[in-house]
Amino acid sequence: MKLVRFGEKGNEKPGVLLNGKRKDCSHEFEDWNRAFFQGDGLVKLENFLKNHGDGLPDVPESVRHASCIARPGMIMCIGLNYSDHAKESNMSLPAEPIIFGKATNTMNGPFDDVSIPLKGDKTDYEIELGVVLKKDVTYLASEAEAEAAIAGYCIVNDLSERAFQLERGGQWIKGKSCPGFSPAGPFLCTPDSLGDVHNLSMELKVNGQVRQKGNTRYMVFKPAYLVYYLSQFMTLEAGDLISTGTPAGVALGMDPPAYLQKGDVSELTIEGLGSQKQRYI
Amino acid sequence: MKLVRFGEKGNEKPGVLLNGKRKDCSHEFEDWNRAFFQGDGLVKLENFLKNHGDGLPDVPESVRHASCIARPGMIMCIGLNYSDHAKESNMSLPAEPIIFGKATNTMNGPFDDVSIPLKGDKTDYEIELGVVLKKDVTYLASEAEAEAAIAGYCIVNDLSERAFQLERGGQWIKGKSCPGFSPAGPFLCTPDSLGDVHNLSMELKVNGQVRQKGNTRYMVFKPAYLVYYLSQFMTLEAGDLISTGTPAGVALGMDPPAYLQKGDVSELTIEGLGSQKQRYI
Repeated sequence: MKLVRFGEKGNEKPGVLLNGKRKDCSHEFEDWNRAFFQGDGLVKLENFLKNHGDGLPDVPESVRHASCIARPGMIMCIGLNYSDHAKESNMSLPAEPIIFGKATNTMNGPFDDVSIPLKGDKTDYEIELGVVLKKDVTYLASEAEAEAAIAGYCIVNDLSERAFQLERGGQWIKGKSCPGFSPAGPFLCTPDSLGDVHNLSMELKVNGQVRQKGNTRYMVFKPAYLVYYLSQFMTLEAGDLISTGTPAGVALGMDPPAYLQKGDVSELTIEGLGSQKQRYI
Repeated sequence: MKLVRFGEKGNEKPGVLLNGKRKDCSHEFEDWNRAFFQGDGLVKLENFLKNHGDGLPDVPESVRHASCIARPGMIMCIGLNYSDHAKESNMSLPAEPIIFGKATNTMNGPFDDVSIPLKGDKTDYEIELGVVLKKDVTYLASEAEAEAAIAGYCIVNDLSERAFQLERGGQWIKGKSCPGFSPAGPFLCTPDSLGDVHNLSMELKVNGQVRQKGNTRYMVFKPAYLVYYLSQFMTLEAGDLISTGTPAGVALGMDPPAYLQKGDVSELTIEGLGSQKQRYI
């Protein structure tokens, strides 16, 4: 299944993608949020689509694409999780995952404009595989248990303001939490509808020029391991989003760095997860 | 006004403290959450108490004290924000605030037991002044604007698992987000009901022995400045919690460090903001 959300900010509704068309599920479901995922919502949705999928109303093309899940209780991100990126940066691979947080009100639609922060001048892109949970989990015993807690996958652009993140004293969250800094979507794909999550090509372009080209096979720590690992330190909840790190090619790593400017357009594609596109304003 | 919440986890209700007694406001108000604060809730509550305060039902003594505000959209914490703590640590004062995040599902009642994390052995306490917002704010222009966005103050115990925070690779959030790690309360005090917020004594005891003794006058960056500052990097929302840093005396700074053990009891008091007490299990 491919889950979407649509409608204006603050009034977003749940839908699905069927044969490439957005369909409105809001008469049956409230939202793709914690309560939905926690309450075996994906099973209910699957049954509902089997019986009623054909009759679902279309979502008009002009309606905004919202983030593919509702605002989560937590966004946790993984740092330095691609071997090619570590190699390019002349950094050794971390012995265990580096994690950092991001304000959850940064969630944004996959095609929404993104404002360059008022006092920012080093705004950077990061294409990432997002992992969404369908259970509350603490102290998981195995990766298999973690695997069973994954609702699906989506594209996340883990935007950063590098000056805030790296030059303003301590802790990355300062440069990761600007308004609109987490475009997510266009859809959440359940594991059974995706190919091998460990072999998905990824590409990010700025103004048509390829900047990042990678594949999830180069992830140091895989999605199920990350869920298992995080659960040793905190309670992850249904509907939470884990953004699993970015491959080589971010602006910070270029010489000189080509940070995003007003008017720039980024396009992000992950195999099987569609594409998103943002204009910076 | 002094706002409290009461009742079992997942079924908490709003109340106030009147003449030292907990009173039930749940027939008039849903919760002390974002919607409440954002919708001029404190003004409505004040008017309501003027007219109906006398008739409010008591909350029975046996009922659990919950965190004094509902789970916020964000918990932002300030690092190294007390001059005595910096001096004791032989560290220079930060040029600007160090900020870090904490999972919001760590919110806990002020008298709830706290579990030592499954694989943790360096659990540490931190008494802090918590600041709660009553408006959504981005890019504030002045400290005066920030001041006007503050709903009130409360005690927070910013618990940390130091091994997770400092020895497991990158970013403090890993050791700050364990279940139950943010006891908040016993009450949220509005600014008009508090003395000078810049001159409040603070004390934390473990098993009756004083460990931390400080005063908010030694804060490097004051509450209004912190709200102003944070708003330059992110949108703070009504109901959000900012924990403003801790004075000297944490276990990490002792030789040898006396980390919290199962069976230990911590008691935290801030002048005008009451006391909280936790047992570690």
